[in-house]
Order: sequence, then C-alpha cells, then structure tokens
Amino acid sequence: MTGQERQERKEGHEQPFAVDPWQVAEHGLDLTSLARAESVFALSNGHIGLRANLDEGEPHGLPGTYLNGVFELRPLPYGEGGYGYPESSQSVINVTNGKIVRLLVDDEPFDLRYGELLSHRRWLDFREGLLRRSAEWTSPAGRTIKVDSTRLVSLTQRAVAAVEYAVEAVDGPVRIVLQSELVANEQLPGGPEGDPRAAAVLEAPLLAEAHHSGGTKGVLVHRTRYSGIRVAAGMDHVIEGPERLDTVAESEADHSRITVTTVLHPGQRLRLVKFIAYGWSATRSLPAVRDQVEAALTAARYTGWDGLVAEQADFLKEFWDVSDVEIEGDVELQQAVRFAIFHVLQAGARSEERAIPAKGLTGPGYDGHSFWDTEAFVLPVLTYCLPTAVNQALRWRHTTLPLARDRAAQLGLAGAVFPWRTIRGEECSGYWPAGTAAFHIGADIAAAAARYVRATGDAEFEREYGLELLVETARMWRSLGHHDAAGRFRIEGVTGPDEYSAIADNNVYTNLMAQTNLRAAAEAAARHPREAARLGVDTEETAAWRDAAAAMFIPYDENLGVHPQADGFTDHQVWDFENTPPENFPLLLHYPYFDLYRKQVVKQADLVLAMQVRGDAFTDEQKARNFAYYERLTVRDSSLSACTQAVIAAEVGQLDLAYDYTAEAALMDLHDLGGNTRDGLHMASLAGACIALVAGFGGLRDHGEVLWFRPRLPTGIMRLGFSMMVRGQLLAVRIDHDETTYTLRRGEVIHLRHDGETVQVKAGRPVSVPTTNPPAQERCSQPPGREPARRQAQAGLSAGRITSGPDHLAAE
Amino acid sequence: MTGQERQERKEGHEQPFAVDPWQVAEHGLDLTSLARAESVFALSNGHIGLRANLDEGEPHGLPGTYLNGVFELRPLPYGEGGYGYPESSQSVINVTNGKIVRLLVDDEPFDLRYGELLSHRRWLDFREGLLRRSAEWTSPAGRTIKVDSTRLVSLTQRAVAAVEYAVEAVDGPVRIVLQSELVANEQLPGGPEGDPRAAAVLEAPLLAEAHHSGGTKGVLVHRTRYSGIRVAAGMDHVIEGPERLDTVAESEADHSRITVTTVLHPGQRLRLVKFIAYGWSATRSLPAVRDQVEAALTAARYTGWDGLVAEQADFLKEFWDVSDVEIEGDVELQQAVRFAIFHVLQAGARSEERAIPAKGLTGPGYDGHSFWDTEAFVLPVLTYCLPTAVNQALRWRHTTLPLARDRAAQLGLAGAVFPWRTIRGEECSGYWPAGTAAFHIGADIAAAAARYVRATGDAEFEREYGLELLVETARMWRSLGHHDAAGRFRIEGVTGPDEYSAIADNNVYTNLMAQTNLRAAAEAAARHPREAARLGVDTEETAAWRDAAAAMFIPYDENLGVHPQADGFTDHQVWDFENTPPENFPLLLHYPYFDLYRKQVVKQADLVLAMQVRGDAFTDEQKARNFAYYERLTVRDSSLSACTQAVIAAEVGQLDLAYDYTAEAALMDLHDLGGNTRDGLHMASLAGACIALVAGFGGLRDHGEVLWFRPRLPTGIMRLGFSMMVRGQLLAVRIDHDETTYTLRRGEVIHLRHDGETVQVKAGRPVSVPTTNPPAQERCSQPPGREPARRQAQAGLSAGRITSGPDHLAAE
Repeated sequence: MTGQERQERKEGHEQPFAVDPWQVAEHGLDLTSLARAESVFALSNGHIGLRANLDEGEPHGLPGTYLNGVFELRPLPYGEGGYGYPESSQSVINVTNGKIVRLLVDDEPFDLRYGELLSHRRWLDFREGLLRRSAEWTSPAGRTIKVDSTRLVSLTQRAVAAVEYAVEAVDGPVRIVLQSELVANEQLPGGPEGDPRAAAVLEAPLLAEAHHSGGTKGVLVHRTRYSGIRVAAGMDHVIEGPERLDTVAESEADHSRITVTTVLHPGQRLRLVKFIAYGWSATRSLPAVRDQVEAALTAARYTGWDGLVAEQADFLKEFWDVSDVEIEGDVELQQAVRFAIFHVLQAGARSEERAIPAKGLTGPGYDGHSFWDTEAFVLPVLTYCLPTAVNQALRWRHTTLPLARDRAAQLGLAGAVFPWRTIRGEECSGYWPAGTAAFHIGADIAAAAARYVRATGDAEFEREYGLELLVETARMWRSLGHHDAAGRFRIEGVTGPDEYSAIADNNVYTNLMAQTNLRAAAEAAARHPREAARLGVDTEETAAWRDAAAAMFIPYDENLGVHPQADGFTDHQVWDFENTPPENFPLLLHYPYFDLYRKQVVKQADLVLAMQVRGDAFTDEQKARNFAYYERLTVRDSSLSACTQAVIAAEVGQLDLAYDYTAEAALMDLHDLGGNTRDGLHMASLAGACIALVAGFGGLRDHGEVLWFRPRLPTGIMRLGFSMMVRGQLLAVRIDHDETTYTLRRGEVIHLRHDGETVQVKAGRPVSVPTTNPPAQERCSQPPGREPARRQAQAGLSAGRITSGPDHLAAE
Repeated sequence: MTGQERQERKEGHEQPFAVDPWQVAEHGLDLTSLARAESVFALSNGHIGLRANLDEGEPHGLPGTYLNGVFELRPLPYGEGGYGYPESSQSVINVTNGKIVRLLVDDEPFDLRYGELLSHRRWLDFREGLLRRSAEWTSPAGRTIKVDSTRLVSLTQRAVAAVEYAVEAVDGPVRIVLQSELVANEQLPGGPEGDPRAAAVLEAPLLAEAHHSGGTKGVLVHRTRYSGIRVAAGMDHVIEGPERLDTVAESEADHSRITVTTVLHPGQRLRLVKFIAYGWSATRSLPAVRDQVEAALTAARYTGWDGLVAEQADFLKEFWDVSDVEIEGDVELQQAVRFAIFHVLQAGARSEERAIPAKGLTGPGYDGHSFWDTEAFVLPVLTYCLPTAVNQALRWRHTTLPLARDRAAQLGLAGAVFPWRTIRGEECSGYWPAGTAAFHIGADIAAAAARYVRATGDAEFEREYGLELLVETARMWRSLGHHDAAGRFRIEGVTGPDEYSAIADNNVYTNLMAQTNLRAAAEAAARHPREAARLGVDTEETAAWRDAAAAMFIPYDENLGVHPQADGFTDHQVWDFENTPPENFPLLLHYPYFDLYRKQVVKQADLVLAMQVRGDAFTDEQKARNFAYYERLTVRDSSLSACTQAVIAAEVGQLDLAYDYTAEAALMDLHDLGGNTRDGLHMASLAGACIALVAGFGGLRDHGEVLWFRPRLPTGIMRLGFSMMVRGQLLAVRIDHDETTYTLRRGEVIHLRHDGETVQVKAGRPVSVPTTNPPAQERCSQPPGREPARRQAQAGLSAGRITSGPDHLAAE
C-alpha cells in the first residue's frame, strides 16, 4: 500500500479496526494514529504489559513496557501548600524494552516510513491471546521481504513474554541482519500539553546496575533513582535459518543486543524466537533479581514457543468457557464486549497483590494509578468469571492497610483512608477536593470485598483479609460522620463519584455506600467474632456501626420528587447547556471547577450509580424520576458513566437508550470515543460494558444473598447469553426476547430471583421463564449535543460490515 | 551592655518595646528577634518602604527595601492543574538597598556581634516620623565610639528617603571610614519552612543595566528579569567633619559606594547626610527613570536634612490633628493605637494608584500581595482621616478593571472579578477554594468606594471611578447568582471571609454584601445617568440589580434561632475543641482543609463581620444570639478577627470582652501575637484596632447617609476621643462613661444619630448627651484556650509601666 493509498484508507474508514466477533484486526498502517493501535493491541497479564509498538521500535506513538508496581517518585508541587497534602506522586515508568527486533535488509533498516509497504496487517484473536503481524515491504533499494511476527505475554508464566519473528526473502538474495535488543531509558515523546490526564513523562528513570551478554542471551539490571526499585530484564533466543548464520552478543549499561546475520535467497526464512523475562523488587538483591529472570528465561525456553502458545490457548479456552458474553444481532457489539473482557482479563489475570491500574498496563495514562474504578467497575466483572483475580486485587488493598491507617490518622480519622490514586498505596492526588475528599473509595473497596465473599463463599479470605478491610473502612465512616441534633447521621464535606461537584454534604451515593459498609462490617464481625476481637472490635463498636447505618441521612427533594445528588444540589443553577458549544467538552478543560461545582451539571453517574449499587434504597417511581432528572444534567465527560446509565436506563424501561449507552461503553477504545485511547485503555469502561449487558439487560443485582435477574432486551439485540460462577457453581443465562433460560452448567442446585420470583435451577434441568418487556415509553432527554449515538442504525450497518478474520484480511 | 546582660534583658521583659503614648522605643538589642524590630520600626510612605535594618547592614533579620509595585513573576505550580488556574504569581522583591552606611573604626567593622555594646537605643516618635538610633560601642581593639543615626522616608517627597549618620570618637584618636552604599541583589536568609504565609524568597532578581558614581553621588539602574520593571536608585551626600577628609566614589553593576575617611579625636564628630531616591517604571526608558531619580535627589538636597525633618513634622502634625484617637486609662493601648494609625498612614499616604499590600511595605509576608483587607479594614479608617489615600487606593483598583474584566470572562462571569491576591492586578492565588472563590472581595471594593463617596461627597470620583467599580461588580454578582424556583436569589459555591470554610452556598456575609453592592450600583447609576449609559447600563439592568438585591436569600436556622454562616453550616459537626491541644493552633498548619471545611469552626469573623457591615439586616436579638453562637466557634487563627469581634461584642453589650479584643488587635505586632511580625506588620489588624475603638466603643455605623454612634466604654478606658472628617467637616467625639460630647471643629452644622436619636451639632456649639451603658451580662465563651487575654489586669499594670521617652531611656 502506498502512502497515497494509506491516506485514502484513513479518510474512507473512520474506524481503523475491522469488525469480527472474535478478534480485532488492523489493515494497513496509519502513521498518525499509531499510539491508539498500540493501546488497543497491547498485551498484558497484569504483571507485565507491552504496548503494541512495532517490533523494529520505530516509528512509534508511545513506546511502553510496564511492570506492575514499578514506578518512580516525582514531587507534587503546590502554588499554595496545605497540611496533609501528599509531597510526592508515583508515576509508572517505561522500563527496559525487550520487544525490539530490528531488521536490516541489505543494510537498510526495515522502517515503514521509507520504501514501499505492500501490505501490513495486525490482528489479535481473543482465543489465542497473540498479537500477530504480517508485512510485505520493498526497501528503498528495491528488495522485497515478508515479515511475520507473533508476540505474547504469557498468561501462564507471569514473568515471561515472547516474540516469534520470521523474515523471508521474496525477490532475490538479500543480506539480513536481525538485532534483538533490550533497551533501557528509551526517549519518549512529550505528552499532549495542557491535559492533566496525560501522564507526566519521566526521562531516563533507570540507573544502570549490571549488564551481561553471551551466546544468545542478554541481561540488564537497573534501579529507579528515587523509588529504589530494582528491575532486571533478560532475553534468550532460538534461531533458525540458513546454515551460514553469525550470532554476536553485546551489552552495555542501557543496551543489550544479539545480532544475527545471514543471507536469504528467495523463499528462505530466518526465524527468531525471543524469550523475554522481567523481575523486579524494592528489597531483593541484585543477584536475586537477576537470577529470577534467568530462571524464568530457562523455564520459558524449556516450554518453547509452541508450548507457550499452547498454554495461552488452553488458558483462554477455559476462561472464555466461563466468561464469554454472547450477543446475537450486533456483531460489532459482540466484538467490542469480547475485546473488553479480554483486556479486563489481561489487566487482572496475574496482578497478584499489586494494583490493577485504571489503564491496566496498556499505557501511561493517569500516571499508571489505580482509582476506585478497580473495585467499582473491574472487580464486579472479574468476581463472576475469574474470582482468583479479585482475591488478589483485594489482598493488594489489604497490604496497603498500614499506609491507609497512617493516612487516616494524618487526616484525623479512625480506621483506614485509602488513597484516591496510587500505585504502591500512598495518596498521590495533588488536588484534594477531587482526591482525598472522595472518601467513597473506602466503601467501594468494602463492597468489592463483601461481593467477592458472597459470590465465592471464601470464608478464609473473609477472615484473613475481608473482615479487616470492612472493619477499618467502617471505623473511618463512623469517625467521618456525625449525628445531628435530630439524630440523623450525616457525612459532610466529601466528594461523590461525580467530579463536577466537590466537597458537598450528604452525597447520596456516599451515604448509601457507607451505610452498606457499616452494616457489612457489623455482619462480618458477627460471623467471625474471634478475628473481630483480635481487631479490637467489640459489640459496642458494632452497635455504633449499625446505629449510624440505621440513622444515615439521605436527602430528598420533596418539591421535585427526586433525590438531590447531595444536600442542596437541586437548588443549584442548572448549567447553561444551550450556550455551551460542542468544542467545550470535556467541560473541565474549558470551565473552572468553581463554576462546575456550583451548578447542576454532572460529569458521570453519581446518584444514578447509587440507584444501581443500592437499588433497594429507591422505589421504582423514584428510580424513574431520578433517572429522567439526572439524564438532563449528565454530560458523560467521564468514561465511567455510560455503563451505569445503561444499567438504570434498562431498569426503568428505556431499553433503546440503554442499548446506546452499552455500545458507547463498549466502543470507548475501539472507536476512541474519549480521544485519549493513545494513553491506554479505559479498563473501567470496558468492564462497564459487561456490566451494562449483565446488570442492564440481564438485570443482575447482587446486593443480597441471592442473585436477582430482570432480563429485557432492546430491539437491536436478538439474544444475550452469559455465564456466572457462583460459589463454585456455573450458571448460564440465555435471554431471548420472549423467554429466559437458566442452566446450571456446574453444581447441583441454585436459587435465584427472576423478575422478583424465586426460581430453582438444578443440574441438567434448564429452566425457561418468560422475559418481561417493559412498556414503551418516551425517551429521556440529555443535554443538547450530549445524546449518545443511536445504536439502531449502527446495528444494521455493522451487520453488513462483518468480516471473518484472516481470510478476509488476506484479500485486502 | 554585654552579651550576658542582653540575655537577661530578654528573659526579664517579654515585650521588647517600652510603653509610651507617642512613641515606640527599644532598649538594647536582641539579636534573636532583629526581624521583628525591623518590621515594627519600618519606615514607609506607601511608595517606598525601608525595613529597620541596622545602618551597617549586618546583623540583620530580613533585609528589606520595597518599592510599591516592583515585583517579580514566579511560576505557580500545580500537582494537578485546572482550567483558569493562574500560571504565575507576583512576589515583592527586595530592591537596591540604599540604607547602608558601613563604619570602620581603625579598620575594624562596626558590627554589634563583636566588641562591646555599651548602649543601644532605637525609637520612633509618631509625631516626628523619624527612626532614631543611638549607640555606644567599644571595638574589639578597645576604641569606643558613639553613633547617632536618624532615618526618614519622606511623607512629602515620595521618591525620597534620607539618613543622618554621625559618629563621634570617645576615648582617643580613631581612624574612621564610612562607606555609604547602594547594594543590589542582597543575599536573603531563607524563610521559615513549611509556613505558606511566609514569602517565597527570590534570589538575585535584578539585572544590572547601568551604574554611575562621582563626587558624592552614585546611581544604579536595574531591571527585573521576568516582570521587566526598571528600577533606579540614587544617593547623594552632605558630609561634615574634620578638615582632613577624603571622599572616594566607586560603582559597579550591583554596587555603588561613597567612601569617606578621616581621623576623629575625642569629642570630634563626622556627620553624613545621605539622600536616597528611587524611581521605577515598566514602560519608561533608562534615561527617563535615571533622570527622575537624579531630579528627586536634587530636590531633596535642596530641601536639606533639616528641611525634610521639618516637612515630616508638619505633615504629621496636621495628620494627628485629624486622626488621633485618644484613650485615657490605658497608656499601652494608647501607644498601640497610635502605632497602628501611624503605620496605616505610612502604608497609604503616598501609594498613589498602586495597591496597599497586606503588610504595607514593611516586609515580604504574603509575597507583598494586597487582599480584601485593604478595602475592608484599612480604607474604612483612612476614609475619615486621609480620604485622598482612599481615593488613590480605589483608583488603583480602577486601573485594574481591564484585568478584572478579562478574569470575569475567563470564569464565565459578567462584569469584573478582582483578584484575591495580587500586586499588579492579576490573580495570584494558587488555591482557588480560598482564593478566586472568595468573590466577596468585589463587594468589599464596591463598599469602600460607596463609603468614600458618602464620607467625602466626591461626586467627581464617583462619576469617573466609583460608578464603574460599582457597575462592574454588580454585573458580576448578577451573573454569579441565580433565582431558584421559589424566586430567591442565591449565590452558591463561594467562600466567605472565614477561611476555615470554603465553597459554600449562600454565605450570609457574601449575600448581604452583594445585596449592598447591587443596590449601590443601581443608586449610583441613577445619580449619574449619562456616565451609566456610557457604561452600557440601562434601566432594565438596574432593575435586575434591584430585583436580585430584593430577592437575596439569607439563610436562617429557625431551630437554633441563629444565622448559619452559609447553607447547612449549623448542621455541621462542631469542631472537637476539647481535644485540640494548644500547640495545634493555627489549625490550618495541623489539620487538613477537608476537616476544617466540613466542621463548625471559624478562623475569623464572618457572620459576625456581616453583623458589623450590615447591622441593618439583623435584629438586636439576632445579633446577641449570633454573636454568642459564633464566639464558641471562633478560634481567631487570623489577625482579621479580633477587631470585628470587638465591634460586635461592644454592640451586644459585652464591653469587657470588646476591650480584650481591641487590645489584641492593637497589640498584634507590638506583642507579636501571631508570631510572624518578622515578615511584616498586619496592616488590617492595626487598622482594625482603630475600628474596634471607633465602631466598637464609639458605635460608629456608616452604612447610611447619616453617621450613627452608640458610645459605651469598658471599665478599663476612662475616656475615648477621636475625630472624623465628613464631607469637609471635622467632627470630634469625646466619650466619657457618663456623657458623650460631639464638637464640630470645622464646618457649620452636622446631623448624626446618637443611640438612635438625631443630634444636630453646630460650629462652636458642642453637644453633650448621656452615654448609655448596657446592662451587665454573662460573658460569652470562646473555644477552650482561645479566650482573648483579659485586659483589666493589663491596664493597671501598664499604667505603672509608663515611660516618657528619651529621658527615661537614657537612664537605662
């Protein structure tokens, strides 16, 4: 494809990725949006993350190799400081790049910016877990070659990644030099200016400690300057090609290189398998970390390339068997939701007592920080398909309890205050009204722990980890709130989920979540009295929690018949949407916080999220009125909104609107709806797409002991199917427009509620019950210009755009 | 005095300054608190400010020479930025030091840290306006000399300062070298760490542009690096001494020096008069600024030292005749209030279309910024004694209107938004919840303009400046607030005077001040229809202002029978004062903002200030209940509180409490009650001391066309007298416990209200009316440990400590 053709392609197709139910594929290469594809095709196992930079390193959008928990400290400056402000932040760093395989063709570098690119395809099949690439290129000197590369980050061997790289001569003998490298302290391009969401770029964060090369192996060991984290990266190779093949190993401080030289005749191939391993630690010695890497390399080489590929496929087969969400009637949405599930898996699979960042390990966005997103959006999905990942993620939170207790003490509170944003556990928020004040994160963590225990029955986890998380967050709430003269328990001066409000009194979401938290802590303490006593909990304390929960103040506007998001919210001036031009979104980049905070304008679902997670606290009529009220105010400047709006839209019977929001959540990154997929994927929005389907159209609610379903489908979806692991049993749900079928795929018997009625499902005895469709109703309205894209038309269109993988791609 | 004696002195007397009704004197020299004395003895005319650094430059606490409006820009950093955040701040800089006269005694520098200091006195008489110093010192080599120096900053020649320096040999022939200098880019000591209130120290901010010396003259010209302000400093000398006297002139980039050498025999004196002049401009050329300085020097030399001293005394005689506040029965308070008035005069006398900073020109505290303090505390005092200074200060605000309109537009508001803190007019606040959100500054400025016009009848000012200030602030209020469904006009998401609350709805002070502002603008527009039309004001707009003012929402807590400071305030948890140790004050240095904001704890009078400036909006019963309620919550971590509490304490009949607060406000700097007098004097607290006396015990209220008085005295004060200039007339008020006498010292006739009754006072016909003392009542309580010091005991004690100036000092 010539440069001109590439240009036409770009103009002709707005979305660069072909639609296919099981994979994402890119045809051609758009040099102007490399960074976006690097995020979309990123591979990770939650431990290691590799952006989809080209093998040859350049051109690139944003080079990225991330190790979970490897960060650098950077000072947090303040024009005017204040007590308790964090002094430093933590930023994920781009570590030693092990992906690089450079190719010289008769001494001309294989660089797609030069010569002629005859074809270029990349695709990622969610069943394989491999990023495949196929290119045919004619060098400026006129030599044509074919390159096929496949990359994986192992889901079974967490320290290992690997690349299979094959080059084939097409039109004549050609001298080939392959340079397989480890490169530390890569130069990074600057981020987009003025957008606080883009990560701070840290230059040359790695100090060299050791380097070694020999045979087909190379190792680099570095240490971060301020955070003192030792990082070892190693590579080993298997090389196959013509007989005459020279191999040279070299290394220096920031660079290790294995060079393979040969001459290929037409049809001849040079194949390189590169095994890559990483080890890191803030405490272990240099030899220990280095040897860990060498051991991982040895194990990977022992498994071999084919072995790694097979393990990957086996892992994914098992995963999809439990986790797939099937959609009939909208293949684009089908693709998007599998893309979403695959990336959520990648983010959480092997995070193992480390945080799951907002972007996973797909990019440097938000500095690599974890927020409440993890517990509120990502873990609810993983709970029912990969509960071990949830166990690990919550155990990470548990390891940070000492820091959270210190933070609480610093803030004058009891119990634990978890950070709004962090990598290691320290608060890294430089703007407290939208950081520390968002105390709801404590309740979000507590809810995730309680949900995990309910879904798995993992009593050991509850005793050892969950109970303490619940107790320390309950203590925080009890000390943060107070009883007023009328005996109501109030929580004041806090920030709820909506970041266009801050420092408000009695945020409904926060108060309801705190109520749940206090009750859950009291119940868990009652279940585990010995462990509770060890934490200093007595019956006076649990009584105080129950009392505060019972007295929790939930503001309600009697005049309007709606819940104000927080005290006084419905008295605020409504944002002047009519006079807000489209280019002024997201509003936070064009209006001051002071103006956003004092007006009725909602960045992301807040009261609406409360209606999802605490549906029991609202009547159906309140839900409908509240939803309609907040729809008119919600601009969705956050990716954490559409999925929640989908769920409640479905509940109140706005099925087409729910469908639109579901698609928005699911397509956030494939269609780059936020314009910042380049900085990494929106894990919570991707997880939210699953939530939109399962909790929205499936009507799943899991705040009680028994799962509730209230299935209903929009016209665009013919059938929806998903499975859920519940206490070791596997329940399949298949929703058609007329009936819903529950099948127990593993286990003996399960009780659930369908449309409020108890249903018993036994092994081998699927139960079909009618799907109740709500009456049609007038569509709720949104702020002008902020309506979600209508999905109906899209569904038909995308059905016509279905492609079917490599065959179609080859025809390109 | 030896080092040991100095130590004893320090331990024996907590307060370093002797009590005297007309002057402040220091006996001995405490090297550990030099900076405090440098502030207390600072000289200024509002244009130039010289800290009281010793003539010889060292030792020093904090060297300081300030020129009003000369600042440097510095970046304002943010851990997380936001739209509309100011990118840079402005910091006052220490400019070329012209005060320095170094002395060598037989080649040993006169440095008080070495040798033996036999005596050292400094005193500042408020009638002279001169800082006098007298020292006797024996050098390490055993030679004794006497040094007498006198320094002035001219109140009549605004670009001029001068020093008379005399050295006398005591015990034998001694070789004397005097080096009179101009020094740019002096090294400054670092500020106290961690206290955001101390100024950022800017190193070497001046770039050399030109230097010149010759004869007895020297000139240095510099420019600030980023703000581009050109600063010229010049000096000229008159030298008298023995016949054999050598004079050398030298200069280089940052340094100009006139050296005088002679030998003195016992009893012989060398006398040097140094004239110093400054000129600065951001626009004028180097020759223009240099020549301006040369011209000022020539004029000063023409006037001569004695002439400058005489002009100073004449100016002050006239000033005190109008401005003195006389107190009988408490000489310490008498001294303190004259100290206060003198420094307020120094800050405002010649500021002339530049800002009056919170510290005047006495120190680098608050970066040299001006806040609402100026309009709300300093200008009300100057209005009735030096109205031209008020005219000038408000004209400075007027010159910043283009910047304030830009800022309003940036914030999405109409009219003008004045900066919370600034030197030149741009917003310099790096923390918007306690900066930009404090919109009340707009109303404070408007109120000052309206008060000035009422007090002077200066219609020309109103037409040319006042009207536009009122109109643009009224427009801001109209766009900031909105009508709710019930038709009430609400102002939400703003910060009132109390900095321990922020971003609240319907702050009573703010809403009442906005109401006044809107009404005043409508009235001024009606008075000056042509000028109003030129500003685009029509009758629809003034109607909208009047309507908003009439509909202004003032929250009231019916249950408690008090006004909440803002919506919901009385529902907040009360701060846990019992468990707040004394060392944790000021609270902002020991507790996070989030905790302060969400609780009932008040840094400084807010609702209580509203009751002073808008007393008409409260019943007497409300005032008493509100005052008692807020007394229990107010910790006075701000120096802008005691004076206001004094005023309302007096109004509600808590006379002894009012007396205590008055003394606290008056002694803020003489007793260093805030612990930070070293960074400069608290102009607003000093002005507040006058307000406490006049508005508190005098009961002055000036929100109507006629002045109201309601005199009452605490037991500690026998008699209180003050004068006020009102529309060119001069009214004297003398308050005794039994009667109050009004005398019209200039003018024909004046009407006023005494205790609610109209009184007519004619020239030559003093009117005496009874002073009504309120019934005794139970003293209001304050947070534990935050009660003001009781004044009764002090008054008796200080009466016994009266000293009477130089005679007593000489006996030391």
